Amino acid sequence: MRAIPQALAYSQANQNRFTAELIDLLRIPSISTDPAYSDQVVQTAEWLAGHLQGLGVQDAEAVQTEGHPIVVGGITVDPAWPTVLVYGHYDVQPADPLDLWTSPPFEPVIREGVLYARGACDDKGQMFMHLKALECWMQTTGAPPVNLKFILEGEEESGSASLPGFIRTHKEELSADVVVISDSSLFAPGIPSVTYGLRGMTYVEITLTGPDRDLHSGTYGGAIHNPIHALSALITEMHDADHRITITGFYDRVRPLSEEERSAMSGLPFDAAAWAQDVGVHTPRTESGYSVLEASTSRPTLDCNGIWGGYTGDGAKTVLPSTASAKISMRLVPDQDPDEIAELMEAWLHARVPASMQLAFNVIHGAQPVLIDRESDAMSAASHALEDVYGRPPYFTRIGGSIPVVADFKHLLGLDSVLMGFGLDSDAIHSPNEHFGLDRFAEGIDAILRFHAHYAAG
Amino acid sequence: MRAIPQALAYSQANQNRFTAELIDLLRIPSISTDPAYSDQVVQTAEWLAGHLQGLGVQDAEAVQTEGHPIVVGGITVDPAWPTVLVYGHYDVQPADPLDLWTSPPFEPVIREGVLYARGACDDKGQMFMHLKALECWMQTTGAPPVNLKFILEGEEESGSASLPGFIRTHKEELSADVVVISDSSLFAPGIPSVTYGLRGMTYVEITLTGPDRDLHSGTYGGAIHNPIHALSALITEMHDADHRITITGFYDRVRPLSEEERSAMSGLPFDAAAWAQDVGVHTPRTESGYSVLEASTSRPTLDCNGIWGGYTGDGAKTVLPSTASAKISMRLVPDQDPDEIAELMEAWLHARVPASMQLAFNVIHGAQPVLIDRESDAMSAASHALEDVYGRPPYFTRIGGSIPVVADFKHLLGLDSVLMGFGLDSDAIHSPNEHFGLDRFAEGIDAILRFHAHYAAG
Repeated sequence: MRAIPQALAYSQANQNRFTAELIDLLRIPSISTDPAYSDQVVQTAEWLAGHLQGLGVQDAEAVQTEGHPIVVGGITVDPAWPTVLVYGHYDVQPADPLDLWTSPPFEPVIREGVLYARGACDDKGQMFMHLKALECWMQTTGAPPVNLKFILEGEEESGSASLPGFIRTHKEELSADVVVISDSSLFAPGIPSVTYGLRGMTYVEITLTGPDRDLHSGTYGGAIHNPIHALSALITEMHDADHRITITGFYDRVRPLSEEERSAMSGLPFDAAAWAQDVGVHTPRTESGYSVLEASTSRPTLDCNGIWGGYTGDGAKTVLPSTASAKISMRLVPDQDPDEIAELMEAWLHARVPASMQLAFNVIHGAQPVLIDRESDAMSAASHALEDVYGRPPYFTRIGGSIPVVADFKHLLGLDSVLMGFGLDSDAIHSPNEHFGLDRFAEGIDAILRFHAHYAAG
Repeated sequence: MRAIPQALAYSQANQNRFTAELIDLLRIPSISTDPAYSDQVVQTAEWLAGHLQGLGVQDAEAVQTEGHPIVVGGITVDPAWPTVLVYGHYDVQPADPLDLWTSPPFEPVIREGVLYARGACDDKGQMFMHLKALECWMQTTGAPPVNLKFILEGEEESGSASLPGFIRTHKEELSADVVVISDSSLFAPGIPSVTYGLRGMTYVEITLTGPDRDLHSGTYGGAIHNPIHALSALITEMHDADHRITITGFYDRVRPLSEEERSAMSGLPFDAAAWAQDVGVHTPRTESGYSVLEASTSRPTLDCNGIWGGYTGDGAKTVLPSTASAKISMRLVPDQDPDEIAELMEAWLHARVPASMQLAFNVIHGAQPVLIDRESDAMSAASHALEDVYGRPPYFTRIGGSIPVVADFKHLLGLDSVLMGFGLDSDAIHSPNEHFGLDRFAEGIDAILRFHAHYAAG
């Protein structure tokens, strides 16, 4: 542990340069879900492979896949030492609606110690902390106190289609003792947490087609069933008056929250009213019988993420549309299975689509929900590292989002993941004006250095 | 009536040139509802004014308004003769979705005697027949047998905002005995009809806002009410299980269909199943207790013309959206009032918007419903003219669409309108691949010539 002060001092002395490098990375619009940006996604992967090589990871490379490249590389200091596999993602969410950004999403700016850009927090900023922690070791002690491997993907925001296959065919190269991921949040500013639960997801797109073309609503209105109405009715029927999801069989495999978990959760310093007001909502609304924290992290959900049909331009068009479509995602909890939920949804829809309509049903992607053992060595090392930095032990929490790869690492490599995140719920990830506090960028690097040291000490 | 054969022969001899001129007119994309096309709308008005001057209407001009120009002009042959005011509109609907057009909407083509272009039927093609009828008189007898005035507007598809004010300030110039409008349909191919009933309209746009920004559906899903769900629930609640509209007070002023009308309507050769199948729909769906023809022409409706919210691009975005919006039009029948219906709708919505949402409600436009006296001299002349051309007297019908100006001419000038249309319900007006049969273009000109003659004969 003697080497820690040097590495921490190096980090502190180089923060401004670290930030400048992160800004270079954020300038590249690596939007994975939109084919228009595929060149920039590749460019980002090459930037990262080059950066890792510069840090001393000689075998770092951006490996082609059927989708976007995966950046891999590693430093084995001593085969007898434990090996940490760092996962991160360099792709980002689309930036629209652009007009709500105070400064352009891909022209990063620092305002009052906060860095604003798409990807600042999710996940370029957090991923980059792990690269800079490696640099701190290389430039002070010459090597990290654990073996370090990296796997940085470019399809997290679009479903990580290539990653499972890549893990399957690279098991050897990716062998490790634990995965570490920084793609989640602190519990609150200055209050660390380690995430042990993640929701899974089933994301589908549905289209109802009524008439075979758009019709004049004067000529046909009153006698032809409108697909927007039919779709609205289906969406409405997906929840009951208790805000429970009505898809037949949806809750069958849901593992109930234990009394111990509910009790721990209710003891967390969480102000539900303030949480809702922070996003401009007067009254939160949850499934009957569950608190806001339970409902938003540990219970399954169904949300319509997008809806469209008919005329959506300026002014009026008196059209009775041919089709109406919706994107719908369901957040899942153990032991729900994404494929099974998609099948239940499809069957439920088919049983309800009116005779005057045709249904197209497409699964866009799925992710397994995850619960991680809170008692492992790596979890303990993470807990100590965070206590060192923040002066208090972390809360162990469940979060509502999905990190599908955590399930992949478990199922394909047998590895648990340590989810040590430094974001905040208010960082506006997936929203206009995404940002990341530079204080948290520095704290994260410190915590990662300390995690390496604690984990090495066993 | 002696002059008729010469005018008819002239029309027949010049059909190809008439069609070529119409094609020139159709090439100009006069989309009134989209500000991007305002120059082309002006260009169309100037084209028409110039064309009228060329026909001998020396005072023809495109008059500026706060919106798009209104083209006016007339020929008074003898002040003692009856005066026919021709109304038409030279603006067209937006052409999207463009990818469903077989040939581009503003590059007219003739396939098997049918002219394909946006506006071919609605209303450039039908409006232009009146100009060509005038030419037939001018080039044969030197003048029409009635006084003729024209008022051609460019805002019909976007609500005719300027027209009522224009009529109000030009009462003198527009004074006439009857209005004639060709902007409706034959009953069926070869079966003429005169329309005596039109539905009115209230067109509104509503937006629900929940959170003040788009949120990550992982972080917030389960505890924040989704505006798409809230909007879907409102749209669903707008109809009951009998497909009646639930807006409080909506039916209060609806004049019931008389037994005589229902009986006449049920005697019309109308095949509801074929009508629905023609647009690819298996099962028509009407308000309980009404036939397809009644429901689509003579009962009020509510249709969602467009809906949008959240992410609608390719792939997946896990967003819990800030807003969801819909365009909703209600087709009205006598004696419903568009302004009152808008107020009822707004009150109904405000009573139901959840506490977690804010409602924005905007009225886009309104139109009065109309019923016209079937016994007037002009209606009789139209009936005879159509019988001359088609060999059978017309049906008197009600149509489901709106021609707001008919109400304006009634209320502002005291004039009834003769609605003598030559379209077909299958002409795909307001849809991709709008078209107009050149046989009907020729028949329409003949019928207009004969109408002039019959009306002149009194």
